[in-house]
Parts: sequence; C-alpha cells; structure tokens
Amino acid sequence: MGEDANHDGQSLSDCTDQDGRIYMDYNATTPLEPEVAEAITEALKEAWGNPSSSYLPGRKAKQIIDRSRASIASMVGARADDIVFVSGGTEANNLVLHTAISHFYQSWGAAKLGRLVGDHQSGKAGLPHIITSNVEHDSVKLTAENLLKEGKADVTFVEASAMTGRVEVEDVLAAIRPNTCLISIMLANNETGVLMPVKELCERVRVLNEQQPSSAILLHTDGAQAIGKVRVDAQDLGVDYLTIVGHKFYGPRIGALYVNGPGTTTPLFPMFFGGGQERNFRPGTENTAMIAGLGKAAELVNLHLHEYETHMRDTRKYLEQQLQAVFGKEKIHFNSHFPGTETLPNTCNVSVLGPGLQGNATAPAGWKVLSKCRKLLASVGAACHSDRGERPSHVLLSCGILPEVATNALRLSVGRATTKRDVDLVVADLREAVCQLEGQGQCPH
Amino acid sequence: MGEDANHDGQSLSDCTDQDGRIYMDYNATTPLEPEVAEAITEALKEAWGNPSSSYLPGRKAKQIIDRSRASIASMVGARADDIVFVSGGTEANNLVLHTAISHFYQSWGAAKLGRLVGDHQSGKAGLPHIITSNVEHDSVKLTAENLLKEGKADVTFVEASAMTGRVEVEDVLAAIRPNTCLISIMLANNETGVLMPVKELCERVRVLNEQQPSSAILLHTDGAQAIGKVRVDAQDLGVDYLTIVGHKFYGPRIGALYVNGPGTTTPLFPMFFGGGQERNFRPGTENTAMIAGLGKAAELVNLHLHEYETHMRDTRKYLEQQLQAVFGKEKIHFNSHFPGTETLPNTCNVSVLGPGLQGNATAPAGWKVLSKCRKLLASVGAACHSDRGERPSHVLLSCGILPEVATNALRLSVGRATTKRDVDLVVADLREAVCQLEGQGQCPH
Repeated sequence: MGEDANHDGQSLSDCTDQDGRIYMDYNATTPLEPEVAEAITEALKEAWGNPSSSYLPGRKAKQIIDRSRASIASMVGARADDIVFVSGGTEANNLVLHTAISHFYQSWGAAKLGRLVGDHQSGKAGLPHIITSNVEHDSVKLTAENLLKEGKADVTFVEASAMTGRVEVEDVLAAIRPNTCLISIMLANNETGVLMPVKELCERVRVLNEQQPSSAILLHTDGAQAIGKVRVDAQDLGVDYLTIVGHKFYGPRIGALYVNGPGTTTPLFPMFFGGGQERNFRPGTENTAMIAGLGKAAELVNLHLHEYETHMRDTRKYLEQQLQAVFGKEKIHFNSHFPGTETLPNTCNVSVLGPGLQGNATAPAGWKVLSKCRKLLASVGAACHSDRGERPSHVLLSCGILPEVATNALRLSVGRATTKRDVDLVVADLREAVCQLEGQGQCPH
Repeated sequence: MGEDANHDGQSLSDCTDQDGRIYMDYNATTPLEPEVAEAITEALKEAWGNPSSSYLPGRKAKQIIDRSRASIASMVGARADDIVFVSGGTEANNLVLHTAISHFYQSWGAAKLGRLVGDHQSGKAGLPHIITSNVEHDSVKLTAENLLKEGKADVTFVEASAMTGRVEVEDVLAAIRPNTCLISIMLANNETGVLMPVKELCERVRVLNEQQPSSAILLHTDGAQAIGKVRVDAQDLGVDYLTIVGHKFYGPRIGALYVNGPGTTTPLFPMFFGGGQERNFRPGTENTAMIAGLGKAAELVNLHLHEYETHMRDTRKYLEQQLQAVFGKEKIHFNSHFPGTETLPNTCNVSVLGPGLQGNATAPAGWKVLSKCRKLLASVGAACHSDRGERPSHVLLSCGILPEVATNALRLSVGRATTKRDVDLVVADLREAVCQLEGQGQCPH
C-alpha cells in the first residue's frame, strides 16, 4: 500500500500536522482549547494540595473542584450535586450499568422479584433486564454483553431502524418487560452522528414508571458525542443518568456522570470503595488539575455553544456540497442522511463508490482511500476499532447501509476551527486519492 | 480556636505558602516536580491525538504511553507488559480485590470448591477468603469490608503488632485457610511509615503455593507510600500485584497496577468493559498527558532515588532530634519508633504530651496544636480522614499506642526539598503553639 499507508500503524509518511495535514476526526478526540490547557497547567502548579486536607492548599484545590462542578452542572442543566467526577466515559457507562443491576437486586421489592421468578413467560424473568441498542459505544455494548455472559442480567439490543438510522421509541417500548430495570440509549451516534429520540423515550417511559413506582425503569444516555456540539439538558431530556466525556469537547481525558439526585432521587452504587471522595460514590484522591480543565471546557461550551454549533454545521454542509460537486451524486453516498432524522452538526459519514475502490480482506475501501490521502486525517469508524478495520462498520450495517457501501465509509468529523479552505483541500485530496485508486494516475484538472 | 483554626475547613488564616507556611504533609500528597508538570503540559498540547488512531498524532500519543510504561516498569523492577494504567491507587486496590474474587469463582477447581463447601470447620468455607490487615488504606479496608457485608467473601483483618507496629508474617500465615485466595498487605503504612515484611511473607506463601498450585494464594502490596521513598522491586518482593500511585512521588493523580504477567502468569479480571485499551484489562481512552507525567516522575525516581531517600532520612532524623531537644524526652512520644522496625525515611509520627494539650470531643489535641501553628502544614493522620479528626487514629491504636498519646499525634512527613531551616522553623512553631495551649502565652526564649 505504499509508504503512506495510515491504517497499519507502520508506515504513515513522515509529514506531520505542520506539513499540512488536516484533522477531520474530531469525533475520535479533540485537541484541548488553549484556555483548558492553561487551567490544567495552573492547577498542576498552584493547586496540588490534597483536596481532603483542611489547610489552605487543600481547600484551594477543593474550591477549584467545586467551581468546576458548577460549570459542568450548568452545561447540562443540572445542580452541582448531580455531578460525580469519574475517570472517563468508559467508567461512567460501566457505573450506570453496575448501578442498575445492584439496584435491582437490592431495592426492587421481594414480592415483585417473587412474581418475576414465578413468571413462566421467560426462564430468565428473575434476572434484571437491560434495554440498549445495537449501535452503542463498546463501553455500554460490551458491558451489557458481559452481564449477559455472566448470567447477571438479561439484555435486549434494540436494532437501529434501517429507515431512520435512529433507535426508535416504539421499538424500545416494545422491548420492556416487567423486570426491565434500565434503558441506555446514546444521545448521538459516534459514527453517523444520528441524534436519538431520547427525550421522547424518557417521556413515554416516565408514564409507565408513574404506574409502577416501586419498579421504575432507570434512564441513561451516553452524551459523549453530543455535548459541546448541540445543547444537552439532562432535566429537559428527562434522563436519570448522563455520561459526560471531556476529550470530546476540547477538554481533558476525564469525565463526569450526571445523576439526578445521586443516592436520593436516583440510585448510585459505587464500583470502588476508599477514602470517601465524591461522597463515597467515586472515592480516590481527586484529579484536581484534570477536573479544572473539564470545568474550563464546560465554561467555554456554556459561553459559545451556539457559535460552535453554527460553525460546525455550516462547515459540514459545505463539505457535503463540495463532495457532491466534485464526485457527482452517483459516486457519493452519505451514510448519515436519513429522511427526517437529525444529526450532529459536525459529522459527515460518506462513501465514495466506483471501480477500483472495492476493499479486500486486508484493505477495505475506506482505509484504502485514507491511505492515499496526503492531507486528510480521518477514520472509518470508532477510534477504538481502528485496528479492526477489515470489516465494514456494524453500526452502518445496523442502520441499513449496504455492505458494499459501508465498506467504503469514511467518517469525516469537523471541529470548531475547521475552515472552508480546509474543506477544499480535503476534497481535492480525496479526489486525488480516488483517481489514483481508479488507475487514472494524476487527476484531470 | 481562633481565626487560624485549620481543621474545620472554615477559618484558616489568610497566610499562604508564600507567607512562610511550611508543608510537612508529603504523605498526603506531593507537589509535582517541574519536569513532571512540563511533560504533562507538553503532552496536552502535542500529543492530544487518540492513541487508538493509526495516523501520526495518534501514534505519537501511543509512543509517549509506551515510553512511560517502560519507565514505570523500570522503577519497580518489572517488564513493560506488567504495567496497567489505572485512574489511581483506589482503582488499583479495588481491581486487585475484584480480581481475586472473580478468579476464585471462575478458576479454582470445582473439586476444591466442593471440598471447601463440605468443610464443616467454617460455615463460610465455600466463600473466597481474603487476608489483609487492620492498618490498610481505606481503598483496601473498605473494599474488603464491603465484600464481607455483601456475602461475597470472608475476610481476616490481621492486627498489627503492638510490639513492632508491623503486620507480622506469622500472624498472616496463621490466618490462612484452604479457601484463602488473596493476601493484601501494604508495603509501608501511611501514618507511621512502618515498613511491612512483605518480602518475607511472599517467600513463605510461595512455599505453600508450590504445594497447592491449583489454589495458589495471590499476593498484593499497596506500594503507594513506599515508592519514591525506598527502593521497591516487585520481583524481588515476590508479589503478584503492586499498587503504584503517582501523586505520592511528585507525579500526577493517576496510577498503575503492576501485575506479574497479567492474564497469563497472574489473573487480572477487568472491572470495566469498553474500547479495548490496556489490552482490555482497563479500557477507556488513555489519559496520555497524565501518563506522560507519571512516566516522567518514575524516570526521576529511577535517576535520583538514593539522593531523595538519603535527604529525607537525614531531614527526618534532624526533625526528631530537634523535637527531642526542644521539648525534652518526657514531653515527646514518637509513634513510629518500634524496636527493630524499619520505617519510611520521611515519616515522623509524634505526640507532644503535657497539661493543656488534652483533646476534647470537638478539638482533639493533635488538631489543637496544628491550629495554633503559624507555619506548619501537617495532619494528624490520613488525608481522607481529615474531617473525622475527633477520634484518635485507629492505625496508631492498632499499633499499641495508648489512646491518650494517639489523640495528640501529629503526622509530619518531609519531602525532597525540606531543609533543616524548615525543620528549625517548624519546631519553633510547634513550641510556640504548645506554650500557648499550656497557658504560658509567649514562649520563654
């Protein structure tokens, strides 16, 4: 594949960002805003005291943490007490599923459990039942699969609709059983950018919960990809839990979990035990500096979300227009365009089709194209699957994208600073790559 | 208690470090070495790519992580593959106990289990049994207590010896049962600095394990307080697991777990599921910047440990001499001096005794003294217990310190940069505080 292959981790050409590379993989991770990096650096130097220490250096750290908690709460329409700091999105998602299972066993009435165990409709009726979808991030999907494998829970993976790319409310409701204790549906898909109908789902489930308050179904959404791109308000959505991930909105590699009244209104069962930090929900000496950075990143979202969103939408739309203009309607398929479905402002999942672009066992088409690009840095799907690129994305297949189209998919995600000139360069770069692969050598100008 | 009270988190006087405060609470947390802060800041700016991405910015992040892993491995006498990055010591300790329980249920032979269940000596013989001590950090102690409470494990908390302050090998060996799956004894106590006989313990248990390889007892030590102060070599100690905590050795607030051949020689059962990072043992997008800092902190230990250790030992000895010289032998009790027991070089746990120094329900003597200090920043015990200061430390009581002495305890822990002048100022400060409390007003000069 030549020396500029970029999917095997061996031989990407030596050009760096400074050599004109253009990053369009903001759904994988984002750079830190300079203010965020500054907040971290300052806290590393000035607020290194143990936040549990009662003298001044400790209290200074505690104040930074409190301020950060307030900014994050404000970002997601929550109270400061609803925010629990965790190490990242993976921990947040695992904590929610762990909580649902523990809550089921410890708090659902014995009478109810007895009834369920006696229920002959399903041999597994005595187990807690979780509903999620088949397009979730691995930190939900594999956690649920592991619970299933270990016999600790029964799980329904609701399929995304091939018509809309969404996980439809009616399909989720149809999966509810008497022993359903948790519904976890992501707010926006990381590959297609499709926004899920979480608010409508919560409204419908709340009606059911009011009829059965002793066995209310807990509602979780992973907001990793949505926060910082569209307005996310936990109370407006009506969720009990919301996963917040710093490095997706120009913040650091930690996260937080929104819980609607942790330990009072909404159960939260810790996975760790220790020194009592985060009200025992998540002990461990607080990572003050990273928390300071997360707070600063939230502050920026609070101040500038509208501007970020508008800019990313305009840029992504321009990208789609240019791709269509350069390649022609027939040669392009937008894998995130579903009639009536809203998507993230920044995500363009696109397949370039045509002779010479078919993948093979070791080099699927998407990677083949990217490997020929001299400027574009992007991916074919979730970053954590970057070493498993030989098969088309299961997320796209789940959304009804044909295998021969899905295998050519590129996930282009723009950021706050992506310009129209960047778009022009990337589209030209893709055109050259495709020309090469189709055996035309240099593109006609 | 006046406006300079420093234990209620409300009214510490306004003086800051710059106003002459002297920090002697290095066992609670340490500042970052400037090189560590620089490594973090640089990585935040230059290595923000997703380490799972296969293009250059991702691979750059991956390289930093690999280099850091090698430095940490070198620090503790391990191979790079033996190091798993985690969010901190609390997670590392929880992960070890979780692993031991999972390993017991999944891997100990059914025959063995059957035999245990049939064992009438103990009604709990079918449960995994953990041995730990009554002077461990809360992240071991409370995790073990929770397993006990939930009926998932039986636990023996071996008492520290009142003669030596150590958890004695014979006492641990005497607690072993057929269903013992884990022994977790800290390497150095955080309050007394007492070094535990972990190496000797491992040698003795390994002999037993060779006789019963199918039900070998796993060996863990929490190295949080020892690393960076004395040489810690996991292979030399003979442990299966070693907890590594950055912020105790001038590094950032993350940690790592040493595992002797994770998943091959030694079991490691993940608590989280997700995107496959850390070979699935600990998924979640890697905190590259903090990992870079942890690696740099390890590099510094690799280069300078002898110098650090010698300096801290000299300084602490000088501190003890000066305390004795100023207060007199009768008025001072060193709570970490046990005949024949080695301690950390930097830790001086001391009680000043005498009239006017008795504690009461809201103001125990240790805090009373610290609250009168104008320069010294220290604690009376573990930082995470700083809001529970009304009772004498259970660790000191466990080590045979009398309650009326333990209630007066101050934990003074010196650092790499603590000077003899700092010691002189602190001792004078303590003398003034004690004079005031004893009603002598200004001290005689």
